[in-house]
Amino acid sequence: MRLRKVRGAIDELLTYTEHFVDLPEENKGKWREFFGNDNPLHVEFGGGKGQFIIGMAEKNPDINYLSIDLYTEVLLKAVKKADKSPAKNVRFLQYDINHVFDLFEENELDRVYLNFSDPWPKNRHAKRRLTHRNFLDKYKVVLKEEGWVHFKTDNRGLFQFTLNECADLNLKMQAISLNLHEEPELDNVMTEYEEKFSKRGMPIYRIEFSLKNR
Amino acid sequence: MRLRKVRGAIDELLTYTEHFVDLPEENKGKWREFFGNDNPLHVEFGGGKGQFIIGMAEKNPDINYLSIDLYTEVLLKAVKKADKSPAKNVRFLQYDINHVFDLFEENELDRVYLNFSDPWPKNRHAKRRLTHRNFLDKYKVVLKEEGWVHFKTDNRGLFQFTLNECADLNLKMQAISLNLHEEPELDNVMTEYEEKFSKRGMPIYRIEFSLKNR
Repeated sequence: MRLRKVRGAIDELLTYTEHFVDLPEENKGKWREFFGNDNPLHVEFGGGKGQFIIGMAEKNPDINYLSIDLYTEVLLKAVKKADKSPAKNVRFLQYDINHVFDLFEENELDRVYLNFSDPWPKNRHAKRRLTHRNFLDKYKVVLKEEGWVHFKTDNRGLFQFTLNECADLNLKMQAISLNLHEEPELDNVMTEYEEKFSKRGMPIYRIEFSLKNR
Repeated sequence: MRLRKVRGAIDELLTYTEHFVDLPEENKGKWREFFGNDNPLHVEFGGGKGQFIIGMAEKNPDINYLSIDLYTEVLLKAVKKADKSPAKNVRFLQYDINHVFDLFEENELDRVYLNFSDPWPKNRHAKRRLTHRNFLDKYKVVLKEEGWVHFKTDNRGLFQFTLNECADLNLKMQAISLNLHEEPELDNVMTEYEEKFSKRGMPIYRIEFSLKNR
């Protein structure tokens, strides 16, 4: 289920064969084969322009990274950035997170990243938030038992919503920060958006949570 | 174990016999007898000048309220305020929360309130924070199985610390707010301090947590 793609942009995107994965469903359950090694698989849902995942890939060559986004233009920026990076362990794909079961087998992922997801501030749109329990139920299936979700946002409303989803579902939480950039031992790779907003002194919120039943 | 009291202030405090409880240890395990009814017992630790607990007592005549603070001058302001209130269900006492076992029997409390507790921002003072796990262990003993702690603060660092204590201890959490005064269905009694700070547009953080083992 790929979204309608913008002609031209998609044609260009498809030329970045080293970093853009066309027909990603074909790798379901076989992402380790795809990367040609047994390294852990970390996936960013809503990866945007790619600065975060490329930065992570450069820092951690022994982890495989996938970044998933809906939008062709955004993905195009990401693959262009990746093309200038020495990292060999990062790929981009265009997909709707609602259909994550078509991409990954049960327990295939070691970690999920959610960075600055769309806050969908209106209550009637709550189900579209990537930390809504309906999404968490899906991540739980594809994430390994011992895997964690790492979430950060500058949006107070979305962070509050996420905390309450985690609390209601009795999820295990850790490393909660209400002002990430003030943390004394910070080892943080910033997204493009984060760089802009933290410069303005806006607090960045962060949490890690496990979807394992306790 | 009462702190050294300031002469004059303590003499005056002792004249407020309707609202100030001298020798509170004598009521340990017998607070319901003391109030002369079987109503639930809600206690504020670090109750300050009393606006919160008096407001709560006025709103909820079928709940008994105790407010505990260390400081004579602060307690004096509180009892003077209580003296002007029609509420008959609120009392003040001077005590060190470290010695809460001298005041209450196991499972004697139905709820604990912590409002704008001293943040003790330096790491080496973390153990003095009223949401440090050492204190939580004490509240757990005196709080009923089904009782909850209601905590609010304007201090981001203290709130972050509290969230992480709750997460580390796997406590059940609920009703988390990162900006209490923006909540749509707010039924909130403000402290003196809260009134001042929320007027300046500072966010007030709030959480409820249970100390029951899950």
